[in-house]
Amino acid sequence: MAGSPRDLSHPDVADLVLTDVLFALSDPARLAIVHQVAEGPLPDVTCQEVRGDLPKSTRSHHLKTLREAGVIRNVPEGRNRRISLRRADLDARFPGLLDAVLGDSQPLTDPSVPAVRRGAP
Amino acid sequence: MAGSPRDLSHPDVADLVLTDVLFALSDPARLAIVHQVAEGPLPDVTCQEVRGDLPKSTRSHHLKTLREAGVIRNVPEGRNRRISLRRADLDARFPGLLDAVLGDSQPLTDPSVPAVRRGAP
Repeated sequence: MAGSPRDLSHPDVADLVLTDVLFALSDPARLAIVHQVAEGPLPDVTCQEVRGDLPKSTRSHHLKTLREAGVIRNVPEGRNRRISLRRADLDARFPGLLDAVLGDSQPLTDPSVPAVRRGAP
Repeated sequence: MAGSPRDLSHPDVADLVLTDVLFALSDPARLAIVHQVAEGPLPDVTCQEVRGDLPKSTRSHHLKTLREAGVIRNVPEGRNRRISLRRADLDARFPGLLDAVLGDSQPLTDPSVPAVRRGAP
């Protein structure tokens, strides 16, 4: 798939920057996305459905922030795209960080964040 | 010291919000301050000296962001103020987070962040 215009850039694991990762995780909507993909990769369209109140441009911006910080991968899959958490890379670079962040249940009980609705892939 | 105009507000441990803490930690200058106070409380004047390139207003804003997120305490001490890390509160509320963040050596080896200069209290 190299060279396809649908390929987006992703930082190498060695280039991940802690403050960039922390910033990417510091927004409730982005953290909700991370909780969702922590359960397994999601097609982009499902991420879109999860927060119906979120404008598409805002969602795209959040996905871009997460991807550029190295938190998620966003790759073509058929006609759609697939979003996945870079758990192994994050665990290798910042041991314990993701577990500590995902271990906090606050985002999922926050009434402003709707529960995950996982559509068929 | 209750009621003194020099007292600043600090959120209770139960009111700490993960995304607020992550945002407070997501700035290199603020993270450098956290690394400094992780070694022990510092008089505010020392924090000031640590980054001579940082305007006083910027430093004050960083300290405010860290305090309001619940990362540090900023209390009067004699004629000055004392800055300390709320490690126990953060560990109780978000187990493992601070260790994971402070375990990354990147901020202290970042050439843009000067080494700690710890003045006499």
